[in-house]
Amino acid sequence: MTTVDLNSDLGEGFGAYRCGDDEAMLSIITSANVACGFHAGDPEIMARTFRISKERGIAVGAHPGLPDLWGFGRRKIPFTAGEIERMVAYQIGAAQAVAHYSGHCISYIKPHGALSNLSEVEREVAVAIARAMRAVDPSLIFLAIAISEQVRAAETLGIRTVSEIYADRGYNEEGRLIPRGKPGALIEDPDEAAARVLAMVEAGGIITASGTLLKTPIASVCTHSDSPHAVEMARRVRARLEAIGVRIASFGEDQCDLASRGLRSLPSVRAGAFI
Amino acid sequence: MTTVDLNSDLGEGFGAYRCGDDEAMLSIITSANVACGFHAGDPEIMARTFRISKERGIAVGAHPGLPDLWGFGRRKIPFTAGEIERMVAYQIGAAQAVAHYSGHCISYIKPHGALSNLSEVEREVAVAIARAMRAVDPSLIFLAIAISEQVRAAETLGIRTVSEIYADRGYNEEGRLIPRGKPGALIEDPDEAAARVLAMVEAGGIITASGTLLKTPIASVCTHSDSPHAVEMARRVRARLEAIGVRIASFGEDQCDLASRGLRSLPSVRAGAFI
Amino acid sequence: MTTVDLNSDLGEGFGAYRCGDDEAMLSIITSANVACGFHAGDPEIMARTFRISKERGIAVGAHPGLPDLWGFGRRKIPFTAGEIERMVAYQIGAAQAVAHYSGHCISYIKPHGALSNLSEVEREVAVAIARAMRAVDPSLIFLAIAISEQVRAAETLGIRTVSEIYADRGYNEEGRLIPRGKPGALIEDPDEAAARVLAMVEAGGIITASGTLLKTPIASVCTHSDSPHAVEMARRVRARLEAIGVRIASFGEDQCDLASRGLRSLPSVRAGAFI
Amino acid sequence: MTTVDLNSDLGEGFGAYRCGDDEAMLSIITSANVACGFHAGDPEIMARTFRISKERGIAVGAHPGLPDLWGFGRRKIPFTAGEIERMVAYQIGAAQAVAHYSGHCISYIKPHGALSNLSEVEREVAVAIARAMRAVDPSLIFLAIAISEQVRAAETLGIRTVSEIYADRGYNEEGRLIPRGKPGALIEDPDEAAARVLAMVEAGGIITASGTLLKTPIASVCTHSDSPHAVEMARRVRARLEAIGVRIASFGEDQCDLASRGLRSLPSVRAGAFI
Repeated sequence: MTTVDLNSDLGEGFGAYRCGDDEAMLSIITSANVACGFHAGDPEIMARTFRISKERGIAVGAHPGLPDLWGFGRRKIPFTAGEIERMVAYQIGAAQAVAHYSGHCISYIKPHGALSNLSEVEREVAVAIARAMRAVDPSLIFLAIAISEQVRAAETLGIRTVSEIYADRGYNEEGRLIPRGKPGALIEDPDEAAARVLAMVEAGGIITASGTLLKTPIASVCTHSDSPHAVEMARRVRARLEAIGVRIASFGEDQCDLASRGLRSLPSVRAGAFI
Repeated sequence: MTTVDLNSDLGEGFGAYRCGDDEAMLSIITSANVACGFHAGDPEIMARTFRISKERGIAVGAHPGLPDLWGFGRRKIPFTAGEIERMVAYQIGAAQAVAHYSGHCISYIKPHGALSNLSEVEREVAVAIARAMRAVDPSLIFLAIAISEQVRAAETLGIRTVSEIYADRGYNEEGRLIPRGKPGALIEDPDEAAARVLAMVEAGGIITASGTLLKTPIASVCTHSDSPHAVEMARRVRARLEAIGVRIASFGEDQCDLASRGLRSLPSVRAGAFI
Repeated sequence: MTTVDLNSDLGEGFGAYRCGDDEAMLSIITSANVACGFHAGDPEIMARTFRISKERGIAVGAHPGLPDLWGFGRRKIPFTAGEIERMVAYQIGAAQAVAHYSGHCISYIKPHGALSNLSEVEREVAVAIARAMRAVDPSLIFLAIAISEQVRAAETLGIRTVSEIYADRGYNEEGRLIPRGKPGALIEDPDEAAARVLAMVEAGGIITASGTLLKTPIASVCTHSDSPHAVEMARRVRARLEAIGVRIASFGEDQCDLASRGLRSLPSVRAGAFI
Repeated sequence: MTTVDLNSDLGEGFGAYRCGDDEAMLSIITSANVACGFHAGDPEIMARTFRISKERGIAVGAHPGLPDLWGFGRRKIPFTAGEIERMVAYQIGAAQAVAHYSGHCISYIKPHGALSNLSEVEREVAVAIARAMRAVDPSLIFLAIAISEQVRAAETLGIRTVSEIYADRGYNEEGRLIPRGKPGALIEDPDEAAARVLAMVEAGGIITASGTLLKTPIASVCTHSDSPHAVEMARRVRARLEAIGVRIASFGEDQCDLASRGLRSLPSVRAGAFI
């Protein structure tokens, strides 16, 4: 029986600002990519998202981004590979600590926005992210864009990799995401998106704009949380996959064992509660 | 033989800004309190400070502050205890990860500025810090202001505590730091400061403005890094203590064993180096 | 014939974040209080809000706040009166320049959140705001909370004042806003809010929780933009006032004459357009 | 008699952070380029710098930068021309207001760091800055890098331009600054820098690395404030120019007349003073 994970970017508000319907997504997906405070997110939102995810059995990953709250992490700000290593290490650690605080733990890493776009195609940036993971916690999984430099970098460094496809994005002939703003970049219709995901999972690879199949393992499907039809699209994708007998479950579900990491058992700590 | 630790706040620059003569202080002190990016510091400065500290055998602690770069963490911004818990957890985790990246590890926590002032006297704030420590890593030590709510909160929660005195600050009759701006708050003469530290270490307690002795263990002496005579004062304090046979060493020196924390052995990762 | 202005806080998003339904509010209100980048807002959102306001004949005011994006300007961060003067001056100037860029100009100032709460009751803070206005542009109007230190400070310094009441807030016996979180602080029902506004405008003063009338001029009514019923409430308030023959118009409508301020006539500059 | 202005970037600290010896530079230069809060600077530092400049008869300019405190405005963050227009307009207005608050006024604009580097060579960015100036206050002068797109853009839009050379930077054969990090980019010896400035002022143009003369008016000389020999270099440049009879004075000295701009006479407002 095939198992597929559904992941989505969550916790991308900041202070009083909200972004997307996290509450609804947390009843559909199996892995939550949680923003770490650089492009979005703050300790309050992180703790809340981790706690609810724990209660619902949803795996959580750190979703590091470039330090650009104004640009939501989408501007390609020039940083050296070394700077990226250190800012990713920082964010992973922050997410791990707040996850532990919330009784949960980080299973995986998935880069955000410009950091993801850069590491999809630039080997140096992908390696920087994998190096940060190896230095901070080598048991972390890299949730990577299928057929990308992310996959290659993680494998080279001995980091476990899981490949994802996007439910709402088109692919060019090299298997790369068609950049936003170009024709075929975005699929807005929930049914079309669900049908595409189904076809790719059944075929065992990415189907490009021209219909070519690029074989690749597909362990996870990303559905965005902040588009107008986000919730509906995620529901359809899940329903269609379940209808053909695919099991929907996180790849990281058995990673969350705080004791095995040398941490003493955590006291029961509830976010916001007091002694 | 008495052992005393010398600690100082380091890594308190930001980007192109520098703060104090870290290089000089790193050849005098035995414990570096490293800013975590909220009131000062950034991943670059943190990694550099951790790496040099590791090379010189200096213990490192996370030095979390309120999120107030403009005010250098000195403004008493109103936060709930829960918010403080989560922002301290976030900063501890970030510091741990960047320390691991740099081949070092965090032994202790010492709060900064307004977060320190508040937790010296307000039990709720002190407990919030201790709770964050317990949730993230219960083996961390609380480097606490002697005779303060910090000590009491940490002990109540089962967190190991180490008490410090300040080389350049006066104490009132309750053993509290005389607030900056009031008479007797600051000692600027390096010789006077060194003599006071010597007297307090020998007497085994804080000596107040009126000359009263308040008995307390003194495991560490804090010397500031950003005052005009900082380096000279730290040198005199160290020399005077060594002259009477006090051993100068970190209380946290044996805490830094990555393997015992369940982390696999780290690859040799050098800050800024590339694969 | 009575004239009443309807004002609302707008442009309180940041980057990709939105806050409230500005588009809908801009078809109801007559004065837009535009955030200046400290507690919310950025140059993009400011320019867009100013341009649409100009097109629709809506007056615009600078809506300065404390530098606290994370807290949306609602935390009472301690600043000296001098610091408040300078940060308010900075924000007024920024708003004036972006307004000119957008073909509009700032008629008035209305402080936000904690800066408003503090200046409602603390004379020093209210004077600091009025002093900043006098130094930057003495023709600016202070849109002030009726019966507050804001009114007194502005009058003392020779700044023109316009008093406002809140459609959705209760008043205590001194005419002060009942703090959020206390019983009677918030009125959520649009009809009840509209009826209250009508009663206060007709009676010529604030009606307190106990029903006492505190006489005061009412030149403007504030309707919030970010509560669940914001748009509906603003529509009801406007409809009820118009039904009894009140003219809805900005108090600042004739202030916007760039030429009289010594500026050369502006070229036609469209936001986002290029040479 | 030739008149030359000496300008330097000042007020580039932030909160508790300092950058360069502003106090010393303010006794040598005739024009202060004051950071506006995006890459450095804050309302406190701005007000202090404006007030001292006014007391000493030094002209002040707005020194806008990209929103990048961490990178000190030196990272080439991708922004559209429209975004640059609006962020420059914002910063000009903020600087004008705080200058008025301090009894001074802004005479000119000089872009900082990456914003300067980009507008030296990219026409779109240079035009964006000039358009922001025209929209906010067409009487402002563009203090521009000699023989650059800045000069051309300002002239095209009818903005008065003043050309500057750098005392401590080498020029390539097109008259462009040799990028930092390349051979010949930086001149560190104060005497060599002073001799070069003298040669260029006497020859009436830029002297390139190969010794070619590129004729251009030279109205101002920029001396950096944050390099190790900054103060000494500025002193030498000034002394050498005065020794050959050059008058050292700001080009903008007669621009500062608040009354002519339609502002009522300002009350005597002292930074930090209170009513």
